[in-house]
Amino acid sequence: MAPAVHPSSSSCLTSEADEKYANVNWEELGFTLIPTDYMYVAKCKQGESFSEGKIVPYGDISISPSAGILNYGQGLFEGLKAYRTQMGRITLFRPEQNALRMQMGADRLCMTPPSVDQFVDAVKQTVIANKKWVPPSGKGALYIRPLLIGSGAVLGIASAPEFTFLVYVSPVGNYHKVSSGLNLKVDHTYRRAHTGGTGGVKSCTNYSPVVKSLREAKSAGFSDVLFLDAATGRNIEEVSTCNIFIVKGNIVSTPPTSGTILPGITRKSISELARDIGYRVQERDVSVDELLEAEEVFCTGTAVVVRAVESVTFYDTKIKYITGEKALSTKLHVMLTNIQMGVVEDTKGWMVEINDTIG
Amino acid sequence: MAPAVHPSSSSCLTSEADEKYANVNWEELGFTLIPTDYMYVAKCKQGESFSEGKIVPYGDISISPSAGILNYGQGLFEGLKAYRTQMGRITLFRPEQNALRMQMGADRLCMTPPSVDQFVDAVKQTVIANKKWVPPSGKGALYIRPLLIGSGAVLGIASAPEFTFLVYVSPVGNYHKVSSGLNLKVDHTYRRAHTGGTGGVKSCTNYSPVVKSLREAKSAGFSDVLFLDAATGRNIEEVSTCNIFIVKGNIVSTPPTSGTILPGITRKSISELARDIGYRVQERDVSVDELLEAEEVFCTGTAVVVRAVESVTFYDTKIKYITGEKALSTKLHVMLTNIQMGVVEDTKGWMVEINDTIG
Repeated sequence: MAPAVHPSSSSCLTSEADEKYANVNWEELGFTLIPTDYMYVAKCKQGESFSEGKIVPYGDISISPSAGILNYGQGLFEGLKAYRTQMGRITLFRPEQNALRMQMGADRLCMTPPSVDQFVDAVKQTVIANKKWVPPSGKGALYIRPLLIGSGAVLGIASAPEFTFLVYVSPVGNYHKVSSGLNLKVDHTYRRAHTGGTGGVKSCTNYSPVVKSLREAKSAGFSDVLFLDAATGRNIEEVSTCNIFIVKGNIVSTPPTSGTILPGITRKSISELARDIGYRVQERDVSVDELLEAEEVFCTGTAVVVRAVESVTFYDTKIKYITGEKALSTKLHVMLTNIQMGVVEDTKGWMVEINDTIG
Repeated sequence: MAPAVHPSSSSCLTSEADEKYANVNWEELGFTLIPTDYMYVAKCKQGESFSEGKIVPYGDISISPSAGILNYGQGLFEGLKAYRTQMGRITLFRPEQNALRMQMGADRLCMTPPSVDQFVDAVKQTVIANKKWVPPSGKGALYIRPLLIGSGAVLGIASAPEFTFLVYVSPVGNYHKVSSGLNLKVDHTYRRAHTGGTGGVKSCTNYSPVVKSLREAKSAGFSDVLFLDAATGRNIEEVSTCNIFIVKGNIVSTPPTSGTILPGITRKSISELARDIGYRVQERDVSVDELLEAEEVFCTGTAVVVRAVESVTFYDTKIKYITGEKALSTKLHVMLTNIQMGVVEDTKGWMVEINDTIG
């Protein structure tokens, strides 16, 4: 695979012209693709390591019809965000965690990943090159999508002979259009993941299989779908694009990352923040029965951040939960976004500042 | 997505120059990609139907970095073969069955499929355009790879706004290099599919997840991997790229197509041929215990055709099976390939002849 683009200098490219902001209606941002100016592309042969990639104009890539990603789904993605703080700095939230998760996924799918430094550097370069697409503080974030794909041609089932690491970005607002809490449908037909599969890594193969369930739920008026475990159908696992937590009294519970749940970075961070304010956080199997008896339910993820669940529907049973000011999720959302937006001091060391001068 | 190719007439293109055969060492064919002259490409917006595609030179395609296939694994593939019969005719084996299976898969992954006629016509056009790549009779076959991919750009998890149907081909010989029976490892760690997932359709998402298992098995000297069901781990399901049968006395048994097994076209055809010669064929759960007690085991698939299993290894237990002249699989292999190669009359109506004059 060769990117169908014109190579250009890889360091410190900035957006066309020097306007501070791109021509975007920042008040209307949703979660749809807004193409930006540049992307990052690096390639690597199987058995070798990634060398320095290039910042190139954002646009179509050129790929073999026989590529592993097109035929056998050999691909991973990541999702993280760049924020413009109140003071005008541009920061990333725990990007090394995404890099490490891509490495776990690459091991599972027999791919060569970029090193943590390469990953973080590529993300930084891509954000700098698209700086004017980072929304004004408080209006959204620049969603960053790193991809690792089997781009080499392969006929029998095997790992591709070449991999491509690519980073593109899009300014985004809220993932779900509704402004209140989510109304989730518990899916009792489709399952997302199984033990011995790829549910614990961010493989592209976990996502197209949930589209049908999501489409059916949305056409019935739900915001999203909550999947149950494939083995028993008794425990809750994950919403299509985010992790789930339940709250009862002082105990916050979330399914364990034992191979079928994505180890969410927001999940981990929110668990830490909940512990900081005195909650007991348990990572353990959570049954549908417990879900239906919870006081509060919420979701976490890079795209959704922290989002209260207003209701859950399981067959004909619909349960409503605490949302709004009294909800723990509201408190945790404020705590997290205050760190991300630089409103409070980052005592965790979670935020990584992007300087235009990075190499 | 736009194919990075030059459009050309869609009907009756033939290979460059008029040599009967391409410059290939037909004695050494394996199952690796040999690029040919042409491929077929058609596109369709979501909510619309595929219109007539084009035969274009085989080569890289151009696709958005944000395409559904690259990010979320929204893709299906098919596999079928064109044969050069002893009389020099070029034929296909049950191509309408592949077309129907692509339609089932497209429904599962929320994609728009080509019609059966469009699919079969595209396959025929691609074979005719690459006629000189169809191996001489008895030396192999032209493997045909139809792909249906989400080629439109999408950011949140959803079906892509555009689909691409593409057909490319490669001359192939045997899928497995060994000339004797297969030595299978029963995988007790990784699982291939789960109920409520996509194991019953030819989704790309079923394949990259098995590469690690396959790689580990091959490096330990096995030919391939046999997967167990995800729910109980007690029943056999499928080999990485083919269906499995066990034989005991007059009874031939194979796992049922209840959502986790690919409904193989060779599987169905071989079941019919086995019944024709007096065997009872049962589609039912087959336990590992039964596998270990079977007299004979064999695999079926477009790539492998019918292939005897010489041994199965489950943890430390290695069982050997009947192979060679006395094996049912040998008899069935001859019956099937005699039909495919035009050695015997096709009383089933399975073979579809390709005429240069198709529209």
